[in-house]
Amino acid sequence: MTRHIAFFVFPDFQLLDLSGPLAAFQVAGETLPEAYRLSVASEDGGEVRSSSGIGVTTQAACASGLDTLIVVGGRGVHSSVSASTVVPLLTALAATARRIAGVCTGAFLLAAGGLLDWRRATTHWRYAARLQTAYPAVQVDADKIFVRDGLIWTSAGITAGIDLALALIEDDLGAAIAKAVAREMVVYYRRPGGQSQFSTLLDLTPPSARINRALSFARDHLSEPLPVDRLAEAARLSPRQFGRAFVTETGQTPAKAVERLRAETARPLVEDSREPLEAIARATGFVDPERMRQGFIRTFGQPPQALRRAARAFRARDVA
Amino acid sequence: MTRHIAFFVFPDFQLLDLSGPLAAFQVAGETLPEAYRLSVASEDGGEVRSSSGIGVTTQAACASGLDTLIVVGGRGVHSSVSASTVVPLLTALAATARRIAGVCTGAFLLAAGGLLDWRRATTHWRYAARLQTAYPAVQVDADKIFVRDGLIWTSAGITAGIDLALALIEDDLGAAIAKAVAREMVVYYRRPGGQSQFSTLLDLTPPSARINRALSFARDHLSEPLPVDRLAEAARLSPRQFGRAFVTETGQTPAKAVERLRAETARPLVEDSREPLEAIARATGFVDPERMRQGFIRTFGQPPQALRRAARAFRARDVA
Repeated sequence: MTRHIAFFVFPDFQLLDLSGPLAAFQVAGETLPEAYRLSVASEDGGEVRSSSGIGVTTQAACASGLDTLIVVGGRGVHSSVSASTVVPLLTALAATARRIAGVCTGAFLLAAGGLLDWRRATTHWRYAARLQTAYPAVQVDADKIFVRDGLIWTSAGITAGIDLALALIEDDLGAAIAKAVAREMVVYYRRPGGQSQFSTLLDLTPPSARINRALSFARDHLSEPLPVDRLAEAARLSPRQFGRAFVTETGQTPAKAVERLRAETARPLVEDSREPLEAIARATGFVDPERMRQGFIRTFGQPPQALRRAARAFRARDVA
Repeated sequence: MTRHIAFFVFPDFQLLDLSGPLAAFQVAGETLPEAYRLSVASEDGGEVRSSSGIGVTTQAACASGLDTLIVVGGRGVHSSVSASTVVPLLTALAATARRIAGVCTGAFLLAAGGLLDWRRATTHWRYAARLQTAYPAVQVDADKIFVRDGLIWTSAGITAGIDLALALIEDDLGAAIAKAVAREMVVYYRRPGGQSQFSTLLDLTPPSARINRALSFARDHLSEPLPVDRLAEAARLSPRQFGRAFVTETGQTPAKAVERLRAETARPLVEDSREPLEAIARATGFVDPERMRQGFIRTFGQPPQALRRAARAFRARDVA
């Protein structure tokens, strides 16, 4: 059975959102010929330029015989959402596909068509709060590499499209072939941790001045206990108002954000200094190494020891 | 200062070898405008088709003002090596560039021009032994994600081109910008472990019957001690002949290969069973958990506990 996988692109799409998953399906097709037929579609067909300047030849979108529709992302996605014709076209295409996926900010096009309503979904960490605000019916999970909700799959930013494609291939052809594809591409089959390891609190969609005040206060008093009351006071809000505003603006609870600030502050000390983990845990408010270990696993998917080891290996890498 | 980064492609190149590094430089250029000028070159210019079927518009290669020449890989590389004109053209281009890089099997084109002679280099794990045999003057290191030797950089397969690009960006613009680019692309800034974690001994360029006999013998007697003498006997060679033939055919010593066979056998038990690590270490000939831990770190860049944890998290991932 040959599955037709169609990628949908638009002007100023991110080339890697397309070429990463495309390479995964292509390698799977080399292992199991006839498994996939791949095509690249756009609204009108013809050459579509990616944001890198490289153009790609596309066919006009056509819904017949589609197995999977994969909507890529990229900085042009917002103009495509605003265009009057793209979302209805995609919605019509999606109605005929067995399975639908969004890579990176491709989720905005799916959300605009209502395809993500009442579903769990993810997108690039930098745009997760914006997706949640613009489409409140979507259950955005900002910490996932990819999310499957029924027949709709979404992924985090750019290279996470490869992880998503591996999961689709596993779903179609089993884990053994998906693993072989990952090995061939020299990409991890199972990435540890969520995508929050790639962002920092400072990179999130700029929060309001009040939330920023609370975050700076936390940063300045990191080694002390930081209960919600103290942060709310710094933000000059009631604890209840503060909690609600914080989640809306950052996509996480204050307690989780404090843990993340601690982990982000501790990480360079763990990786680049010879400071004992005990002292780092104290200085960053984790109090003891065990709590720091748990915070690191939740934030980065790896304990401090593993990150220290990897950093040491990286510094000793083979450079002349 | 704007650096001109030129990618060299040929018919049937791997699109991801180009688009991965290209996206990294593009994101760096968004952070620091004017940092880079990017171009895609080929022998004659015009449209060049990648092995995915997607064509890319290229310019005829021209050496003026080049900072970095990046030669991509892909299944068309061997025809390009055989063509009479490509290698001399690349050698001429390389002579004017400040810095030269090869992604994946792009190393074969650099090696054919003598550019890797007496230098350390790497390539896709599947082709490392072939590169070593075809170009004995190259010091091939089959276990690296990327290698720098002076002004010549080479990377492992496909997605490793992104790791290579991050290293070039770090070299140009410092670690802070390279880290920001990695975060934006949702890709690890420092990948743990070497590329041997992606291959298995069975995937290597098919070794001779003798070496295969030794490998099967090792697989069948994994829980027992496996000194070189025993393996050489299985291969019906003297220990000396055996050691030499083994390194030539597999790119690693018999002792390292036995460790890897043990680690590859133990890994699914660690990840997918609830077997105590102690019992797994015994069954696979690591004898005790500490030796297994060290073997795992050398092979996969991560200890058994971390892989078991990641696998558990992956199984519990957010799927409906």
